[in-house]
Amino acid sequence: MSATIHRLGSERPPSLEPMLELVAPDMNLVNAVILDRMQSDIPLIPELAGHLIAGGGKRMRPMLTLASARLLGYSGARHHKLAAAVEFIHTATLLHDDVVDSSDLRRGRRTANIIWGNPASVLVGDFLFSRSFELMVEDGSLKVLKILSNASAVIAEGEVNQLTATRRIDLGEERYLEIIGAKTAALFAAACRIAAVVAERPEADELALDAYGRNLGIAFQLVDDAIDYVSDAGTMGKDAGDDFREGKMTLPVILAYARGSDSERVFWQEAVSGRRAADTDFAEAVRLIRATRAVDDTLARARHYGQRAIDAIGGFPNGAAKDAMVEAVEFAVARAY
Amino acid sequence: MSATIHRLGSERPPSLEPMLELVAPDMNLVNAVILDRMQSDIPLIPELAGHLIAGGGKRMRPMLTLASARLLGYSGARHHKLAAAVEFIHTATLLHDDVVDSSDLRRGRRTANIIWGNPASVLVGDFLFSRSFELMVEDGSLKVLKILSNASAVIAEGEVNQLTATRRIDLGEERYLEIIGAKTAALFAAACRIAAVVAERPEADELALDAYGRNLGIAFQLVDDAIDYVSDAGTMGKDAGDDFREGKMTLPVILAYARGSDSERVFWQEAVSGRRAADTDFAEAVRLIRATRAVDDTLARARHYGQRAIDAIGGFPNGAAKDAMVEAVEFAVARAY
Repeated sequence: MSATIHRLGSERPPSLEPMLELVAPDMNLVNAVILDRMQSDIPLIPELAGHLIAGGGKRMRPMLTLASARLLGYSGARHHKLAAAVEFIHTATLLHDDVVDSSDLRRGRRTANIIWGNPASVLVGDFLFSRSFELMVEDGSLKVLKILSNASAVIAEGEVNQLTATRRIDLGEERYLEIIGAKTAALFAAACRIAAVVAERPEADELALDAYGRNLGIAFQLVDDAIDYVSDAGTMGKDAGDDFREGKMTLPVILAYARGSDSERVFWQEAVSGRRAADTDFAEAVRLIRATRAVDDTLARARHYGQRAIDAIGGFPNGAAKDAMVEAVEFAVARAY
Repeated sequence: MSATIHRLGSERPPSLEPMLELVAPDMNLVNAVILDRMQSDIPLIPELAGHLIAGGGKRMRPMLTLASARLLGYSGARHHKLAAAVEFIHTATLLHDDVVDSSDLRRGRRTANIIWGNPASVLVGDFLFSRSFELMVEDGSLKVLKILSNASAVIAEGEVNQLTATRRIDLGEERYLEIIGAKTAALFAAACRIAAVVAERPEADELALDAYGRNLGIAFQLVDDAIDYVSDAGTMGKDAGDDFREGKMTLPVILAYARGSDSERVFWQEAVSGRRAADTDFAEAVRLIRATRAVDDTLARARHYGQRAIDAIGGFPNGAAKDAMVEAVEFAVARAY
């Protein structure tokens, strides 16, 4: 038996398909829980929640719970409810994020706050968040509750951290990593980790899956932040340059600023402070980011975390589940090419 | 031994003092938990949370947990953490409410959303909400988690229900009671009920305390809604007429509309739809509400629920705790006089 060394950069383009296939039967059951538990006597709740939940999201986080459970050979059904809880937490944060960022487009569709207003988005987010805890309580594992309540608090801290970092040209890569580690990677990590809890595996397996999810989450966010400077609304489902116009300090900007000439740094200071938000300014930003290889190196960072994610699950048995989880990472870091 | 029949309407003005005294030593410990657990490495979080938490609130809900525990003779310490969790849920909903209502004044101080903006208020609310679940998980009672996660979902549903009821002149008393039962009374009920869980008392005691809290919560909200038409910012810590200007359908308006002449009903239709929001319109609203005895009867309804709250705990031993809980109800319904 020869060792299988999974490495980024194979021949055929990586795809999410193997993971989608791997979890398809389970995901149908998760979707049934989601649809059932977003109901309410107040019609606005399923209407608004359904807009986002049915709105073409990849269900990345519940998929990770399901795939991790498959990796561990778990044959029970507890993870369906918990995967739905994870998706509810994610949906709640999306609803609140769109209010916080005053976004008008997500996944290529108008955001809930634009259609129903900020108040409804805030309150339905609260509802979904509460509902996610009800689902966890029904499952009854205090360990799962601890992991997901902690992740939720960390996410909220990360979001506040990001908010206070807005328009701060001096942010730096370390604090940026802190922010995306909290606002994105914490839920990826928790989504994977809880599979080991329901499968009653030792803590080492919990930690390995946590590391897989956390590194994948960081890679995922790095690529997302890179895409904002290389793509357009047609391919990414959000407005290109959103981050730029909001003065969000993402890694492409941090690198371009750190590597820029004096005059380029003046440009970035003005841009991040909000004094350069025209389309021509965004074009200039994209040009500078290219010139300083800031997107390329953001993606190189993403590959680093992607490789760590892949190696984190190296100790689990080879097979379809592991292959799918590896390819999901490869897909995540290849999205921007 | 003669029976003690507690009845509303005694000679000396009722006060919250006995309850404040009853729970004072416990409340110091709860405050220590609150201060400790609202900390974060992100300075904006304790700053914003502290503004509201230190902002002169009565800590009514954690006080009810502590008083209920005293009523049951509970001598442990678990309820300190849980009372803090209850206050965090309440604080989170206040932060989100002020965003939803675009309020600028609460408890006589500028609201957090005015000082720090809506995004920060939404996210710090999310943080406190998550933190409250972390506190519950540390306590480790799935029963408490169930009660409070359910209450949280019901609160959010009630808030959405209220939002969709805004400017709906045809709301009616029944749906109004549904709304305040969810958005206010559910947490009062849960705050009391969890004391019976930590004291490991039979379900009948849980239900009795739940009924006490629920009826007190309804009475409390009825009086709050009455006060908006009899008081001013100086005495109530919020802007008089806020509800009126926002087109909120509270019981005083529902009764004044139901009892009004044809021309008065036209006035209410215009007012609730937002076409009459001037100071002179508010003065006219107050006049009509007086003429139809709508405030008086809102307060009569409050006394009805207050009496039910008092009778709900009739079966518990007489003593200082019960007396304080009875007088707290009397105080709640007497606030508007």
